[in-house]
Amino acid sequence: MPNYALRVEYDGTPFAGWQRQDGLPSVQQVIEEAAFSLNGGAAVTAQCAGRTDSGVHAEGQVVSLHLAADLAPERLREAINFHSRPQPVAVIAAARVAEDWNARFSARHRGYRYRILNRPARPALDENRVWHVPRRLDAEAMHAAAQALLGRHDFSAFRASSCQAKDAIRTLDRLDVMRQGDEILVVAEARSFLHHQIRNLVGTLYEVGMGRRPANWPRALLEGRDRRKAGQTAPPTGLCFTFVRYDPEPDWR
Amino acid sequence: MPNYALRVEYDGTPFAGWQRQDGLPSVQQVIEEAAFSLNGGAAVTAQCAGRTDSGVHAEGQVVSLHLAADLAPERLREAINFHSRPQPVAVIAAARVAEDWNARFSARHRGYRYRILNRPARPALDENRVWHVPRRLDAEAMHAAAQALLGRHDFSAFRASSCQAKDAIRTLDRLDVMRQGDEILVVAEARSFLHHQIRNLVGTLYEVGMGRRPANWPRALLEGRDRRKAGQTAPPTGLCFTFVRYDPEPDWR
Repeated sequence: MPNYALRVEYDGTPFAGWQRQDGLPSVQQVIEEAAFSLNGGAAVTAQCAGRTDSGVHAEGQVVSLHLAADLAPERLREAINFHSRPQPVAVIAAARVAEDWNARFSARHRGYRYRILNRPARPALDENRVWHVPRRLDAEAMHAAAQALLGRHDFSAFRASSCQAKDAIRTLDRLDVMRQGDEILVVAEARSFLHHQIRNLVGTLYEVGMGRRPANWPRALLEGRDRRKAGQTAPPTGLCFTFVRYDPEPDWR
Repeated sequence: MPNYALRVEYDGTPFAGWQRQDGLPSVQQVIEEAAFSLNGGAAVTAQCAGRTDSGVHAEGQVVSLHLAADLAPERLREAINFHSRPQPVAVIAAARVAEDWNARFSARHRGYRYRILNRPARPALDENRVWHVPRRLDAEAMHAAAQALLGRHDFSAFRASSCQAKDAIRTLDRLDVMRQGDEILVVAEARSFLHHQIRNLVGTLYEVGMGRRPANWPRALLEGRDRRKAGQTAPPTGLCFTFVRYDPEPDWR
């Protein structure tokens, strides 16, 4: 059956996350049900590059699915966007891909952005898109602390207890912290991440930003490999899955 | 009575606009009711720098109001943000101002941003924050057309029939159109604007961007002064009131 890739944007607010769960709305369900009518009435299974949690957003999630129909990518994109209305899920681009191509296992590089609104006033425009931290954070100290975490390490200290990965060895390629006016952006890139890894890293850098811990503390936590000692898991609202890279890149339309 | 300035952010989606209207939610009502408890039980009247329409957002609206109480600006900001919950209205900063200071009449310069999402897929993350235009627009042609509208002119061609201003003479200081990825941003600045002026300008530039009209058409419309000949009024969702400048600037806290 023809295999397709979809680049997908969604607002994670109303969903229990990417993954299907009984009785709860999920992004996977929205896409699979929208694709159902294009598959001759047979169920569709969609696989994604990053299984985002409840409340986490995506600008550039990538999804793969097989369909019985042979469709132009533009037509598939438009059909899913039509059938998924009015859910806040949109297919930005689509591509035909090789039979064995898989959004998750073919992925080479993933990027996320975490937004902290760092001002006294609560958010009015971005309520579900940021973590609101009223007290001033030291973004430069957070950035310095983050640089000590780059490279290939055992990230057990920043892994959710529910994480199902076989091991905690990952290579963190980028973890930049930068202030832009009232916002602090954390940009994270790696081939792959552990469950809650970015939110746990942000929650740990927050302790440094608040001045409660020194800039070398996150590195010491990393080396200690003990999740119980790291910072809180930062709220999902601030997190957005921004991109996935493949080699070769699908011929997006 | 002490006079205060507030810099206010709001999501215009749930409101009938800035101005109070019987039986409809308004930003003015949210602020006046939140300030009521700080005024010894007497009604409060808030005046704003720009009376935004229903669905129009603000990052930097400025509001002035007199209150019986003598309050530190930080305390006023926090009190209004507490009492206005959970409405999507937040006071970003507050200041004590002179007795005769007025958010509207003291304003020297106003800035707005209009966002067009210019891609085939409908918005999932920014549904109420953009005007979705699926067909590719020529942003460079729109920008060129916009430059011919700068300066002091009679803007009758771009004025709402409901506009209550005495005359239509305004000085347009900036009207930039720029593409940023899938978005086209229109940035407009002037001492003051007519009712619907920016949305009518955007709706007119849209005709140029679509290739239906030449880049010199908006200037010809301006000179003709006939509202019936200009483009549509662009939807309110894309518009955001970004800033107001004063001289001297209030001592924002």
